[in-house]
Amino acid sequence: MTSIAEQVLSGNKRAIARLITFVENNHPDAQYILDDLYPHTGRAHLVGVTGSPGTGKSSLVNKLAKAYRQQAKSVAIIAVDPTSPFSGGAILGDRIRMRELAGDSGIFIRSMASRGSLGGLARAVDDAIKVLDAAGFEIIFIETVGAGQSEVDIAKTAHTTIVVEAPGLGDDVQAIKAGILEIADIFVVNKADRPGVEKTVATLKAMLELGHAPTRHMLHHGQLMTVESVSNNSENSAANSWEIPVLKTSATKEEGIGPVIAAISQHFDYLHQSGELANRTRTRLIDELETTLQTVLIERLVSQLPPDYLSQIVDKLASRSLSPYTAVQEILKTKGNQE
Amino acid sequence: MTSIAEQVLSGNKRAIARLITFVENNHPDAQYILDDLYPHTGRAHLVGVTGSPGTGKSSLVNKLAKAYRQQAKSVAIIAVDPTSPFSGGAILGDRIRMRELAGDSGIFIRSMASRGSLGGLARAVDDAIKVLDAAGFEIIFIETVGAGQSEVDIAKTAHTTIVVEAPGLGDDVQAIKAGILEIADIFVVNKADRPGVEKTVATLKAMLELGHAPTRHMLHHGQLMTVESVSNNSENSAANSWEIPVLKTSATKEEGIGPVIAAISQHFDYLHQSGELANRTRTRLIDELETTLQTVLIERLVSQLPPDYLSQIVDKLASRSLSPYTAVQEILKTKGNQE
Repeated sequence: MTSIAEQVLSGNKRAIARLITFVENNHPDAQYILDDLYPHTGRAHLVGVTGSPGTGKSSLVNKLAKAYRQQAKSVAIIAVDPTSPFSGGAILGDRIRMRELAGDSGIFIRSMASRGSLGGLARAVDDAIKVLDAAGFEIIFIETVGAGQSEVDIAKTAHTTIVVEAPGLGDDVQAIKAGILEIADIFVVNKADRPGVEKTVATLKAMLELGHAPTRHMLHHGQLMTVESVSNNSENSAANSWEIPVLKTSATKEEGIGPVIAAISQHFDYLHQSGELANRTRTRLIDELETTLQTVLIERLVSQLPPDYLSQIVDKLASRSLSPYTAVQEILKTKGNQE
Repeated sequence: MTSIAEQVLSGNKRAIARLITFVENNHPDAQYILDDLYPHTGRAHLVGVTGSPGTGKSSLVNKLAKAYRQQAKSVAIIAVDPTSPFSGGAILGDRIRMRELAGDSGIFIRSMASRGSLGGLARAVDDAIKVLDAAGFEIIFIETVGAGQSEVDIAKTAHTTIVVEAPGLGDDVQAIKAGILEIADIFVVNKADRPGVEKTVATLKAMLELGHAPTRHMLHHGQLMTVESVSNNSENSAANSWEIPVLKTSATKEEGIGPVIAAISQHFDYLHQSGELANRTRTRLIDELETTLQTVLIERLVSQLPPDYLSQIVDKLASRSLSPYTAVQEILKTKGNQE
């Protein structure tokens, strides 16, 4: 085992931060170190927190983290900003949050921005979770800004997904997208001291009753999945037995935090008892495997092609003298001839 | 050439709709038909329209489409909903919009939801654009709901990206994400009849002046790119010469539409003259090629492995008796032995 892996396992924060940077930068050693850590993963409870800007997500996560610390549980927070392909605000955000939770060895906070790479962020976040899981953090929050595909990605990674709304925002039907409803395990209406909170709660409850039951097992439609089905021992009995709670908090006033902590814990128990945890873990593993395989396969392909070959293909595509599907056939044939 | 390809080229709307459905469903014939159409693509102006819910994007796109029709230009609209992994509202939305623009043979409208597949939607949208481009539509709007990675994807597909804001929404600094600024070629503050419009315009202009210059050439960090650089004949001279306009509209009152149409046209001229159009096309082709290669390579891999082999690998990963990186090496070795 490498020394950095040993340091991470002992909870050394500088080693953890350094390894996450390795992961972000695609450092060639990262995969070997992660493999060393892998047998020590699978213990943390991964909690995704998502919602529109202005709902007070970060503030809620900070208070939840504080509450866990009072129970002597160690907490890591990964703040993901998929809307920013270029990092920048991330470090400032870290500093501001650090101040509130500073000096506590049981807390680790890290911001991650996408830096322009599409699949790169999701993969880096998955790997950062592994690092923090191996380091022994019991609760790992994965917080995302924005709405969209990134939430669906996080719902696949997290065990428990909290969707945060705020009064007023929830009144607009457009703001409560079907997709968001379908990834939520727990709804929190934050800023509950503001007017309109009951209306937002009622809207959410009504939408939940309209039959938007959680259908998380449908989230995966990757290619590996076509040859293998998720082990599915409890779909009918347990999938409908988690009742999505709608909770009210005022994070800045530290009100309503306890019931959210309780709901997170109940949801984890439900996942364990229903067999759903094994399901989700398996789905996530298939996804990760597929992503890694794609990366490795294309790297191998590129290394097997003559120099400038791909550049010439792109020239022909640009001039419309070659069509994409034909191009792919030609590339694969050329690769075969080089082998 | 297949008869469906011929019908699409002649502008037959039923054939266009059918082929887009083929593309969405991964119909085995879709790639062959798209290859037939490919030499006829590359003529349309692709205009991305994005922004938060409640900004009146759809309404703005409808009015822009109407204005183009008055210039006798044919218009297609693809309404993409990446926040909804499961379709549902899409068809209703189509009907409502159809009513306003109905009976005009120069207009084609299609909604596309992600249906739970991650990369699948982006690919289907790219292919749908090719179909509509080959069918001769001069302006193709690609409209997205939500904020996040999907905008970055669309910025890569579209020639011109319009970011729509509304008064009030823009006052929250969080709502104007750095990523959104960096993909915008044109800002439109819609609902300009509402109070606060000048403040939103001023905020956007101030943020633009703070040095968030467009850096679109940085958006691509795919793997093929590492072996090939985008042809880059104009980066320094032209990249900074497009001044991002901030325009005001009131789509429901049909006010301010003309200047947006003019800006779209000016931006297309700029792209042509600066050589940036060729740059963006090339970047997009590299991206598409990479995605297609990844798909084909993993399909081939899976078909070369023994049945249940991947399932056993996932079992070992789940029990932590095998680590991910080692698993990938093992899969590739097994594949090699099967060949």
